Amino acid sequence: MEFTVQQIAELLKGKIEGDSTVTVSTLAKIEEAQQGALAFLSNPKYEPHLYTTNASAVIVAEKLELKKPVNTALIRVPDPYSSFSTLLQYYQAAIMASKTGVEDPSFIGNNSHIGDGHYRGAFSYIGSNCKIGDNVRIFPQAFIGDNVQIGDNTTIFAGAKLYANTVVGNNCTIHAGAVIGSDGFGFAPQPDGSYNAIPQIGNVVLEDEVSVGANTTIDCATMGATVIRKGTKIDNLVQIAHNVEVGAHTVIASQSGVSGSSKIGKHCVIAGQVGIVGHISIADKTTVGAQSGVSKSVKESGTIIQGSPAFDYKQNLRALTVFRKLPELQRDLEALKAGK
Amino acid sequence: MEFTVQQIAELLKGKIEGDSTVTVSTLAKIEEAQQGALAFLSNPKYEPHLYTTNASAVIVAEKLELKKPVNTALIRVPDPYSSFSTLLQYYQAAIMASKTGVEDPSFIGNNSHIGDGHYRGAFSYIGSNCKIGDNVRIFPQAFIGDNVQIGDNTTIFAGAKLYANTVVGNNCTIHAGAVIGSDGFGFAPQPDGSYNAIPQIGNVVLEDEVSVGANTTIDCATMGATVIRKGTKIDNLVQIAHNVEVGAHTVIASQSGVSGSSKIGKHCVIAGQVGIVGHISIADKTTVGAQSGVSKSVKESGTIIQGSPAFDYKQNLRALTVFRKLPELQRDLEALKAGK
Amino acid sequence: MEFTVQQIAELLKGKIEGDSTVTVSTLAKIEEAQQGALAFLSNPKYEPHLYTTNASAVIVAEKLELKKPVNTALIRVPDPYSSFSTLLQYYQAAIMASKTGVEDPSFIGNNSHIGDGHYRGAFSYIGSNCKIGDNVRIFPQAFIGDNVQIGDNTTIFAGAKLYANTVVGNNCTIHAGAVIGSDGFGFAPQPDGSYNAIPQIGNVVLEDEVSVGANTTIDCATMGATVIRKGTKIDNLVQIAHNVEVGAHTVIASQSGVSGSSKIGKHCVIAGQVGIVGHISIADKTTVGAQSGVSKSVKESGTIIQGSPAFDYKQNLRALTVFRKLPELQRDLEALKAGK
Repeated sequence: MEFTVQQIAELLKGKIEGDSTVTVSTLAKIEEAQQGALAFLSNPKYEPHLYTTNASAVIVAEKLELKKPVNTALIRVPDPYSSFSTLLQYYQAAIMASKTGVEDPSFIGNNSHIGDGHYRGAFSYIGSNCKIGDNVRIFPQAFIGDNVQIGDNTTIFAGAKLYANTVVGNNCTIHAGAVIGSDGFGFAPQPDGSYNAIPQIGNVVLEDEVSVGANTTIDCATMGATVIRKGTKIDNLVQIAHNVEVGAHTVIASQSGVSGSSKIGKHCVIAGQVGIVGHISIADKTTVGAQSGVSKSVKESGTIIQGSPAFDYKQNLRALTVFRKLPELQRDLEALKAGK
Repeated sequence: MEFTVQQIAELLKGKIEGDSTVTVSTLAKIEEAQQGALAFLSNPKYEPHLYTTNASAVIVAEKLELKKPVNTALIRVPDPYSSFSTLLQYYQAAIMASKTGVEDPSFIGNNSHIGDGHYRGAFSYIGSNCKIGDNVRIFPQAFIGDNVQIGDNTTIFAGAKLYANTVVGNNCTIHAGAVIGSDGFGFAPQPDGSYNAIPQIGNVVLEDEVSVGANTTIDCATMGATVIRKGTKIDNLVQIAHNVEVGAHTVIASQSGVSGSSKIGKHCVIAGQVGIVGHISIADKTTVGAQSGVSKSVKESGTIIQGSPAFDYKQNLRALTVFRKLPELQRDLEALKAGK
Repeated sequence: MEFTVQQIAELLKGKIEGDSTVTVSTLAKIEEAQQGALAFLSNPKYEPHLYTTNASAVIVAEKLELKKPVNTALIRVPDPYSSFSTLLQYYQAAIMASKTGVEDPSFIGNNSHIGDGHYRGAFSYIGSNCKIGDNVRIFPQAFIGDNVQIGDNTTIFAGAKLYANTVVGNNCTIHAGAVIGSDGFGFAPQPDGSYNAIPQIGNVVLEDEVSVGANTTIDCATMGATVIRKGTKIDNLVQIAHNVEVGAHTVIASQSGVSGSSKIGKHCVIAGQVGIVGHISIADKTTVGAQSGVSKSVKESGTIIQGSPAFDYKQNLRALTVFRKLPELQRDLEALKAGK
């Protein structure tokens, strides 16, 4: 895709300085941009790059006063960052929009229906009795089991796996290799010390605008549903166990894990590599620091915790500060005991 | 699948109260059940739900005395939980049994043999010289490399990958995205600071009744075998490194990792997000608490450890209790030093 | 593949003792070797196995003096370990070399080119406008998105996924289930508490001789590139976030994670289950101990850190030693306060 500076300026309702016929074909940071790229300048700290950049065009603020001559076309707008974000959205939407149609071979089972404007990549698999909405993109080698429901405008990237009976809302994104609906880890110990698998007949429900990262795993419920509520964003390599419920607009960073039947509130922020034990509740707007281990329920909204086991993050920080000095503390204590 | 209350009662040798012609098509928890569902009541705490449930039928104890009228058919049995578990087993077996035959296209290499009653999903791949038993289900996009052996009644879910030479026993379950037999992480440092890969020519052996979770990785041995013994259950996103041996009937929870050449005993419980260093031995019946880091061998059977590095869990708990009060300890010590 | 002891000895320029016509078809450890296997003896600790081994042949040192009669052919060389490593390399190369040609069905998009001597497994997918070098092996169900570039002699194992625009160098190995180029985890909070995805239009660049473990995830840059430099080896289930740069010849062990925009130096060793926060720099030759949490930049080359949060590993060890005795410290302090 190639656009002239003129076309970009019209889209952004910006004013051009320099050559309006120059073409750009990609977006880049001002400090890395090469010929053919369009960059932006928002933070004044980066202004020196404006005078040395190889970008073919730069979006700048209306009010910016040039301190030196520039070798690039300028597009002046009220808010360069916002205009650039708009272009990023267009750019990504254009790439995605190009993915339509059905590549051969792909598989679709009996009695399954998929709406208009869809993409089904080669080697993608859709089981029987599935209901899939409009403008859904199913990339190559993705697996959609029997009886799965998927809303409109959802994208399932390459090799993601949705077990039978999974329900996915509108505008969801499921990244490559994610596994949704695998068996919960439930085993009944037997008198001889062996384990029998407890059948896991529930499913997973993802509401609208949910994002699931690459190679993340979300287990189905033993009975009922494991539920991820509207707008929640889950990063890569996260584990969500059976019967967990994650509230709306919560963010869970990479490599964190939530054990069975725990309920996480809405608008929470769970940092990376956090572990949350089973059968507890985390209040709305809770923040959990990285590598924490949450061993009991959080009852008050807005709580910030850290540590393994996790407690109040300020108290934890103070304790960690003393932890480093433990050898000196011990020495001082021994001296006092010896009467020195 | 739809059954009448009459049919269910005959299967469970139960006594019906209410309409024996009502049909049920799914199983549910009593507090969540809708029309068409069969639920059970075992824990007396849940009895109030019996009088309000929308379930079409509920399995209850023979001796239960109703305190109010009910709107649901009842099936009376000696042990409702056990009867319900039986139904869960039937239900899951019925779903699995429906997966038979071969979907097109699928791939099978030269000189490979697969037994009776199998399922091979579309886009599944079986290499050359494989020996696969009876009633094996290989879901879509699963990969079985050359020279792989698989026993009877084993299920390989969608997109699981078994590298060449892997050996899998009877009645195993390998969930979606699991990778069995990838190269061990072995690199020989060179004089110039670069690394040369050490060829990894061993394999992975899973004995009977082993379960491997979604997106878990088990590396092949450098030489010889990485071995998971009979009945051991491994959760999602677990890492098992080269030449590890995990004993029989051990449970390893999600996101734990075992480094190269370590040996874990039988009947152990490894909680979530645990790390175990390489070249150590963990005694039988050891329990390792969540997020622990096991840095040395555990010699005594039945040991319970916790922490990073891990030591006796009671001692660890006591130390953690004081850890939170470190700022106060430091203050008290300073006061004593100042002679106050 | 079967070779006579004569053939092996010629390859290694070794001297035979015993039957030079015996054949071997596999390599094994001396303590585990069965008939038909070739083993080696380097460490004198293992010498007793030489007199009991079932190996058909053993590579031994020129100078070794036998203390008992042996039942196996011997091949004498100056350095048995080095000779055996050479054989391992040959063995693995021979297995890999047998993978050539194209299995049906596989998919290749418009305007994509792949060099000589390649293997494309069944159900592998190559998008449009890809440039792929010579002797590249793409295993079944691997996904190569549009505009991907791959150098010579690189192997992409089963089901690995390379998103569009990924660049991979020569002699790289990407293991099964790895995901390269998934969206960075970037979401802009909105006034109503929901999140909007920030388009991620950058890519991932892997330089030459990079190894990526099974089910590892490497996110694309928001703009620009996430870069893994020459010779770096990444283990299984590792997370590399958007815009990270990992220097040359660095090793990252399993289940570690690096957050967005951090820069890791060259010749570093990152042990397992480590977390590194975003927007920091780690100096060259830094060693980070297992399960550490690195919360700030490391400025000095050669630093060794440990702990969560991580600091000097010796200081950390000393603090951990006192940590275990905290209950006793508290008791002593209370006694002093009470004037005892």
